Amino acid sequence: MNEIVSIQFDKNAKPLYKSIARGIKKKIEDQTIKGGSRLPAVRHLAKNLGVNISTVVAAYKSLEEDGLVYTKPGSGTYCMPSPAQTAQSDEEASELFLREEFESGRLIVSGDMINLAGNSPSAGVFPVSDFKKAVNEVLDTDGGYAFSYQESEGYRPLREILSEFSKSHYGIDCSADEILVTSGAQQALDVISKALIKHGDTVMAELPSYTGIRSVFTIHGAKMLGIPVEHDGIDLNITEYYAKNCRPKFLYIMPVYQTPTGVCLSAEKRRRLIELAEKYDFYIVEDDLFSDLNLVGERLFPLKKEDTCGRVIYVKSFSKLMMPGIRTGFIITPKKLFENMAKAKYATDLSGSGFIQRALAVYFKNGFWNKNIEGLVGYYRKRLEITLRAVNSFKRYGIGHAEVKGGFGVWLNLPSNVTDMDIYYKCKQRKVIVAPGSSFYLTPAAGYQHHLRLSFASSERLTDGLKIVGECIKSAVNETSTHTIFI
Amino acid sequence: MNEIVSIQFDKNAKPLYKSIARGIKKKIEDQTIKGGSRLPAVRHLAKNLGVNISTVVAAYKSLEEDGLVYTKPGSGTYCMPSPAQTAQSDEEASELFLREEFESGRLIVSGDMINLAGNSPSAGVFPVSDFKKAVNEVLDTDGGYAFSYQESEGYRPLREILSEFSKSHYGIDCSADEILVTSGAQQALDVISKALIKHGDTVMAELPSYTGIRSVFTIHGAKMLGIPVEHDGIDLNITEYYAKNCRPKFLYIMPVYQTPTGVCLSAEKRRRLIELAEKYDFYIVEDDLFSDLNLVGERLFPLKKEDTCGRVIYVKSFSKLMMPGIRTGFIITPKKLFENMAKAKYATDLSGSGFIQRALAVYFKNGFWNKNIEGLVGYYRKRLEITLRAVNSFKRYGIGHAEVKGGFGVWLNLPSNVTDMDIYYKCKQRKVIVAPGSSFYLTPAAGYQHHLRLSFASSERLTDGLKIVGECIKSAVNETSTHTIFI
Repeated sequence: MNEIVSIQFDKNAKPLYKSIARGIKKKIEDQTIKGGSRLPAVRHLAKNLGVNISTVVAAYKSLEEDGLVYTKPGSGTYCMPSPAQTAQSDEEASELFLREEFESGRLIVSGDMINLAGNSPSAGVFPVSDFKKAVNEVLDTDGGYAFSYQESEGYRPLREILSEFSKSHYGIDCSADEILVTSGAQQALDVISKALIKHGDTVMAELPSYTGIRSVFTIHGAKMLGIPVEHDGIDLNITEYYAKNCRPKFLYIMPVYQTPTGVCLSAEKRRRLIELAEKYDFYIVEDDLFSDLNLVGERLFPLKKEDTCGRVIYVKSFSKLMMPGIRTGFIITPKKLFENMAKAKYATDLSGSGFIQRALAVYFKNGFWNKNIEGLVGYYRKRLEITLRAVNSFKRYGIGHAEVKGGFGVWLNLPSNVTDMDIYYKCKQRKVIVAPGSSFYLTPAAGYQHHLRLSFASSERLTDGLKIVGECIKSAVNETSTHTIFI
Repeated sequence: MNEIVSIQFDKNAKPLYKSIARGIKKKIEDQTIKGGSRLPAVRHLAKNLGVNISTVVAAYKSLEEDGLVYTKPGSGTYCMPSPAQTAQSDEEASELFLREEFESGRLIVSGDMINLAGNSPSAGVFPVSDFKKAVNEVLDTDGGYAFSYQESEGYRPLREILSEFSKSHYGIDCSADEILVTSGAQQALDVISKALIKHGDTVMAELPSYTGIRSVFTIHGAKMLGIPVEHDGIDLNITEYYAKNCRPKFLYIMPVYQTPTGVCLSAEKRRRLIELAEKYDFYIVEDDLFSDLNLVGERLFPLKKEDTCGRVIYVKSFSKLMMPGIRTGFIITPKKLFENMAKAKYATDLSGSGFIQRALAVYFKNGFWNKNIEGLVGYYRKRLEITLRAVNSFKRYGIGHAEVKGGFGVWLNLPSNVTDMDIYYKCKQRKVIVAPGSSFYLTPAAGYQHHLRLSFASSERLTDGLKIVGECIKSAVNETSTHTIFI
């Protein structure tokens, strides 16, 4: 933060605070002060510039009014990442990690490598034989009709089953007329973008988040604003700040077992977020990857359950909980958006596979879903235990982790002298792939290179992999200490 | 064309032709002269305005230089539909027919109605039992792996099979690395739009054409230019005019058995179109619905076969030729576009269904495709004969039709005193649905309301339906004659 001390300002200007604010603004614009970074404490800056504390307070306040900085109560004043900056840094981040080395579905992990990076479920636990029964029932009963063009919104009986299912499993009260069947969550996000985003619009997303949203939102011409995730969910002060100043169309959020952090949005924040959406007229796109996969403690329900004012667009995929290859998920949309969503879905692919949708309807009717989820919870609970045992042993190297209550991954906090890429490359040399925390960021933020996500989703050699990660962490930490001492 | 005679111009202006051009321009801008309509003959206008012929020639030339009109050699001067006009008329047309009454996949045709409008194949001829064999082979052999996430570009062995298949069946020489598997042709068009269209770009399409393109291109912010289809394919003079003046990104075209007219692009026009694409730097998006379904005369090959300079993006769907419910098709893209297409596909839905793609690979490997096509050709050839027999009997009412050599439909030309909607409503009252020609137009054009498309794709009561259409045509023609004589 030394740069800010060297700002240009006119000591005799009146009012003085405006001159200081202009000096800081210049540093923000030329990116000497980076988006997301903390400005110096008021007292500290005042002393360095040789001005009164109240003058710096006034300068910060004026910058805040211009939307250049924001205040985090009890923490300080931070530089706002501008939408333009976000887009640019997005490109940079892509260049740096995603295109080059690591991107979900793109990174080729060969058979002799241990994959602790991916978020794909284990093929070994897929309910193939139950699904085969359903498939053959459809082929025998419906014949050619299973393969006709079908309603763009989805096979009607499946939509009715999903409406009952959403009520009984997620506490969401909705009719079949609010449900749109899609080809997984990614298509759901594409359809939502088509229906809601106009070129040049702004949308908000958690920071860090699932990186696949980057491509889909930006391809529709949206600027993305990232909102930091705290231990109890996204920072709602920043959300409000953006909502008020940038008028975003929607917020993309995973309120339960967030990817990649595993964080859950607290009860209080849930209430306040819906209030904000109502007050500033934006939608909440809730991606519910894992609420079914509660591994520790009490089960949490989707945010949509609490949506009394039609603000939440609920997205559910069966990829993680059943199997990705069926490419099916669904949207529960507020009624007033349904028509536009249906048109967008039609433009996207006319309709999904009626064959698969009919087979899923049979699968649900036969009660196979519950049976499958019970099996998965037991399976992943064991794998979480194995992972936590290893991760807790990393504590001796200064490694902490976020609380995990469900999902597929553990979010590690690295000490400030070790970066995620240090460990990523070390692990890769030992044929283990981990997910560098920085690959989940859409915008630069202080400390973004000090996380790792370890996935226990699918590797058959989980224990071996975790052991190697431990060794790599140890080696990285030791090397850094050596540097610190001798150089 | 009387409106143009009443143009405002200053008889003493110098140069006089500019004053006349301004007067005509005003009429074009306020849409008194409609896009697509023919301007009066030079001689005729000169006489009416009391000016020299050369003055009118100069006025038309000046309008042509401004991109407001175009000359069709041997036919006259026509008003250009502007992109803005196109978009607006598009909306109007949607309102008028598509949203209200008729749109592929949206029009509900109840069980007691005879559907001669749709382009969906008969469920009765779907190769369900062969596909079932393939499905079960995959489930038994691959188990859970059939349902994992798969490469976004498509299941590699299927892409290799499709590359060989494209060579042996369509004469297209391409490698698996140029093939991208999609969820049908509609998703292919969505992916192509994402990869190529920037907000505000222009694209070209045939007029009339498949109306599903309207939503996908406009959702990506493209302006659409319609190019009239002649008996030997689109008008290449207008194509060149647009290519030169509007710099479109691509032309969407069905060179073989065009929907809805059935027209085939002549050998000479194929050559010239590729030259134009090269000269003016646009791509040709070839939608090959039916080249496999050659019912009369010699088989025609896709335009892509002749593409030596990487200008043609080939789109193939299995919906019409196998069954829509498998939601699978593919793109063959020029190599330099592959990376962008793959990214766009990834943003759209991560990947298609690996399960279905594996089953298709088995289906092709077992030779089921050829067996199926042979069956289809025999089946549809008979239905075409039935349809032509009926249609030829409509001649007595002044009804002609375009030549049909393949595909699912016959394009009727109605006499100028009967509109498509007259007959559409009459047929609907008798519980037969036909496709009004105007529903296939993206822009207004002279005579666009004097066509009908009769589809012989799927109705089980084809003969009954055609008989009723004949009766409705007879009744419509007679009513109009009565009007003409007595009112």
